[in-house]
Amino acid sequence: MKLRYEALYMELLAIGTVESPLRDRASAPKQGDEGAPDAWLVFDPPVAEGLDGIAVGDELLVLTWLDRARRDVLRVHPRGDPANPEQGVFSTRSPDRPNPIGLHRVTVLLIDGLRLLVRDLEALHGTPIIDVKPLLGSIDER
Amino acid sequence: MKLRYEALYMELLAIGTVESPLRDRASAPKQGDEGAPDAWLVFDPPVAEGLDGIAVGDELLVLTWLDRARRDVLRVHPRGDPANPEQGVFSTRSPDRPNPIGLHRVTVLLIDGLRLLVRDLEALHGTPIIDVKPLLGSIDER
Repeated sequence: MKLRYEALYMELLAIGTVESPLRDRASAPKQGDEGAPDAWLVFDPPVAEGLDGIAVGDELLVLTWLDRARRDVLRVHPRGDPANPEQGVFSTRSPDRPNPIGLHRVTVLLIDGLRLLVRDLEALHGTPIIDVKPLLGSIDER
Repeated sequence: MKLRYEALYMELLAIGTVESPLRDRASAPKQGDEGAPDAWLVFDPPVAEGLDGIAVGDELLVLTWLDRARRDVLRVHPRGDPANPEQGVFSTRSPDRPNPIGLHRVTVLLIDGLRLLVRDLEALHGTPIIDVKPLLGSIDER
């Protein structure tokens, strides 16, 4: 698979790291709401200001770089089950995909400086965090 | 702002490009459901197989690289309105942020080979596409 390459403009910078009891893919649930443990989002000091406005109870979307995923995979058996017919990765949530970006919906349980304890995160220990966004409410709440 | 740098593992590859009547930030709505036009997702031939399983009517999450955003910004006035007190970018949907990844919820209107026409996309013409994921249903539908 040979893809267009625009590295000059498309280099990601880690803004933090996941601390979690999950150490390998085999032990991780497929999605956060399928039994993932609480985990810490530990942010790097240079981005501290960017966290201003996040509060306990907020629902956030956390984007991570799934550094243990394969990037040369375009078709998978959904949920890793050989009984499911193969599909293109873009119609699945497989971590294996050309740009292995994880998208996780979490709830903030505790804030301790640069550390946020969150519920329902299936990312593995050591996974780089690349972005955090608020969940959007309905239009009239924005 | 000096961030940890892990470029070796964190270089994004464009998988396609947005074709849209939106040509600049001033003309784009803040969110897709605030009046964005229909737009085409045009995928690169090497990732064609990855699209297998996407159908008209599907709701998708499209991830883009917001190539006209600033990466050195950590605080913004939400929605670009000076009347809103500044907040950290991670509690806003500002395109300006350390890793300017756009997250767009769209509906597929038409599929023509490597081209998908979608509703409600506020990304600008020429924006690189980096990933596509299905919206997750409730646990018992997975």
